[in-house]
Amino acid sequence: MKAYVFHGPGQSAWEDVPDPDIKDPTDAVVRVDTVTICGTDLHILKGDVPEVRPGTVLGHEAVGEVVEVGADVRTVRPGDRVLVSCVSACGRCRYCREAVYGQCLGGGGWILGHLVDGTQAEYVRVPFADLSVYALPAAVPSEDAVLLADIFPTAYEVGVLNGRVRPGDTVAVVGAGPIGLAVIAAAHLFAPERVIAVDVDPARLEAARRLGAEAVADAREAPEQLVADLTAGLGADVVVEAVGLPETFETCTRMVRPGGRVANVGVHGRPATLHLEDLWIKDVTITTGLVDTHSTPTLLKMAAAGRLPTSQLITHTFPLERMQEAYDVFGHAAETGALKVVLGGPQREVVPVPTA
Amino acid sequence: MKAYVFHGPGQSAWEDVPDPDIKDPTDAVVRVDTVTICGTDLHILKGDVPEVRPGTVLGHEAVGEVVEVGADVRTVRPGDRVLVSCVSACGRCRYCREAVYGQCLGGGGWILGHLVDGTQAEYVRVPFADLSVYALPAAVPSEDAVLLADIFPTAYEVGVLNGRVRPGDTVAVVGAGPIGLAVIAAAHLFAPERVIAVDVDPARLEAARRLGAEAVADAREAPEQLVADLTAGLGADVVVEAVGLPETFETCTRMVRPGGRVANVGVHGRPATLHLEDLWIKDVTITTGLVDTHSTPTLLKMAAAGRLPTSQLITHTFPLERMQEAYDVFGHAAETGALKVVLGGPQREVVPVPTA
Repeated sequence: MKAYVFHGPGQSAWEDVPDPDIKDPTDAVVRVDTVTICGTDLHILKGDVPEVRPGTVLGHEAVGEVVEVGADVRTVRPGDRVLVSCVSACGRCRYCREAVYGQCLGGGGWILGHLVDGTQAEYVRVPFADLSVYALPAAVPSEDAVLLADIFPTAYEVGVLNGRVRPGDTVAVVGAGPIGLAVIAAAHLFAPERVIAVDVDPARLEAARRLGAEAVADAREAPEQLVADLTAGLGADVVVEAVGLPETFETCTRMVRPGGRVANVGVHGRPATLHLEDLWIKDVTITTGLVDTHSTPTLLKMAAAGRLPTSQLITHTFPLERMQEAYDVFGHAAETGALKVVLGGPQREVVPVPTA
Repeated sequence: MKAYVFHGPGQSAWEDVPDPDIKDPTDAVVRVDTVTICGTDLHILKGDVPEVRPGTVLGHEAVGEVVEVGADVRTVRPGDRVLVSCVSACGRCRYCREAVYGQCLGGGGWILGHLVDGTQAEYVRVPFADLSVYALPAAVPSEDAVLLADIFPTAYEVGVLNGRVRPGDTVAVVGAGPIGLAVIAAAHLFAPERVIAVDVDPARLEAARRLGAEAVADAREAPEQLVADLTAGLGADVVVEAVGLPETFETCTRMVRPGGRVANVGVHGRPATLHLEDLWIKDVTITTGLVDTHSTPTLLKMAAAGRLPTSQLITHTFPLERMQEAYDVFGHAAETGALKVVLGGPQREVVPVPTA
C-alpha cells in the first residue's frame, strides 16, 4: 500500500510500504477513507517529537471501513464504517478505568503515527480496537467525522471542560488556528457571555468571528487590555492557550481574572515563566492535558445533530495520493489560509472547496 | 493602648497608639485575648509586601472579646468571645456571593495588618464584623482557636481542598513549616493512603511524622525519587507547595503524577519556571490561592470535636507585651525550633511550654 512515512527531521514521502495486518487479537485493520493532518504532524517533521522513529507512518486521525479484526474484538466487525481516534486505550490500566485514556499505561494513549504506524495510509492497524474506534452514524459525513478524531475532542476536553466554561463566562481564546477555532465553537455549548479571540492573523480572527467570537484582538497589541475593558477590569473567567509558546501562555496568565482558569491546549517545546509573585494570591487554576477522547461519543451525537460547525474548519480537500501537496498547503498556512486540510481515501473522490 | 507597629522594612516596635473605635456601622472593636505571628508578618517586616504603609499595626489572627459594635452589626454583640479571621468580607460583591471572600472587591479580603490596623494589639477594629468574626465554642481554647484564623483554613482550603485530596491518594507536602504541617494534618481528614513530607530541617520532618506523615524526605536529596519509589514510578496524586520559592515549586511539578494536582500555598516573591515542555501532555492541574475562610465554621466544629491537632503546632507562648521577643523567636525558627508562637492578651497569663 501507499503511506506517508517519516524518515527523520525534514524527510518524509508518500511511498510504498507493506500492508498492515493483525498482530494482536485486539487489533483491527481499517481501510482509510478520509484522513487529515494535525499541527502535531508538523512538529514531528521538524524533529520536535524525538520518540517518533524514522520509518513510522504518520497520522492519528481517520475515518474508514473495518476490513479485518482480531479474535478478541467485540464491538466492530468488517464492513463497519468507523472513526479512528487519536487516542487508543487498553481499557484495563488505572488510567483507562478512570477514562483518562490519554495517559494509558497499558500500551495505548497517543500511539498512532507516534509510536506505531498511523493513519496517513491506505490501511492502518488500530490496536485495542474495541476502545479506539467508534462506529459512525450515517448522518455524519466522513470529512466532518474526521475532525472528531482529535481536534474537536481536544478543544472540548482540554480547553472547554478543563477550563470549566460556564454560562455567563467571558472566555478568551489565545490562538485562532484550527484548535483555537474548535475551542471557540465548543465553548458555545456552555452559553458563555462572550468569547474573545486573540491571534496575529486577520484571516484567522475573521474565521473566529464566524465561529462565534464576539470580540477579537491582535495578539501584538496588548490583548489583555481588551479583555480587561470588557470585564470591568477583572479579566476573563476562562483563558485557553491554543498556540504552544511561552509568550502566549504568559499572556493567558495576565488575562485571567482572580478565581479564573487557564486551560493550556498548546503543544509546548520550551518552558514558560510562571509569575507566581502575582499569581499566588489570585486563586488561579492552570490545567494541562492530552485529550482522552472520552467525549467522542458525545461529540458524535452533537455532530449528527448539526451542532458542531466542523465543516467550517475545512479549507482544503485533496485525494489521498496528493498527501505531500496537502502537507505543503497545511504547513504554509500563513500564505495558503489553510485551517484543516482533509484527504479523501481511495473509495471516494473529494473535490477541493474554495478557501475562506 | 499598646500595639506592634510597622515603621518600614526592618523597623517595628511594641508601642503606644490610639485606641481604635467604630468608624463604620459594620465595624466591631475586639479586645485581643490571644494572637499569633504569621510568616507573612515576617515578609512584611522584610519589605516584601510594599502596600503595607509605615504606621500600620501588624497581625491578622486573633481571639478576643467584642467590646463595641457598629449600628449595622447583627451577629455578635459586646461580651461575645470571637475568632477574628484573617479575611474580612463585605458580603455583597460578586466574589463574596460566591464565598470567595479572599478576593472581596468591596473593601474586604486580607486587610487586617495589611491595609488597615491589625490584631497584634490590645484592641482591634474589625471591619465587616458580621462576616469577619466567628463566635467561639467554649470547647475550643483560645490558643487553639487562634490557629483557625489563618493557618488551618489556609492549609485546608488552599492546600487540601484545592488539591482535591481523596481517599487513597498519595499526598506530598513540600515544606514542613507551620502551614505544611497543618496541610499534613488536614489532609488526613480525607483518608489519603499516605502523606510524604519534604523539608531540609530534621526537626520539622520529625514534627511532620508526629502529625501523620508516613514518609519524610530531605528536600536536598532528590525527594522526587522517594515519591516515585512509593508510587510505582508515577508520582504523587497531590503535591502541596508550602514554602514559596521557585525551586520548591518546580520540585512539586516534578513530583506529581500524570493527572495529578499541584496546590500552591506558598507566598512567592519571584517567578518560577513552568516546564510546559514536559507538563503540557501530563494532565496536571496547578492551583494558587489566598484563603477565603469559608471553611472556618467547619474547622471550628472539627476543633471542638478534637479532630484538629492545633496544639501540636504551638511551640512557644508569651504574654502579649513580650511581642518583640516572640517575633525574635519566630523569626529565627531554624535556631529556636519555633513553629507557631502564641501570645496571650492582658486578660490571661500564658506560661511558656517546652519546645518540641
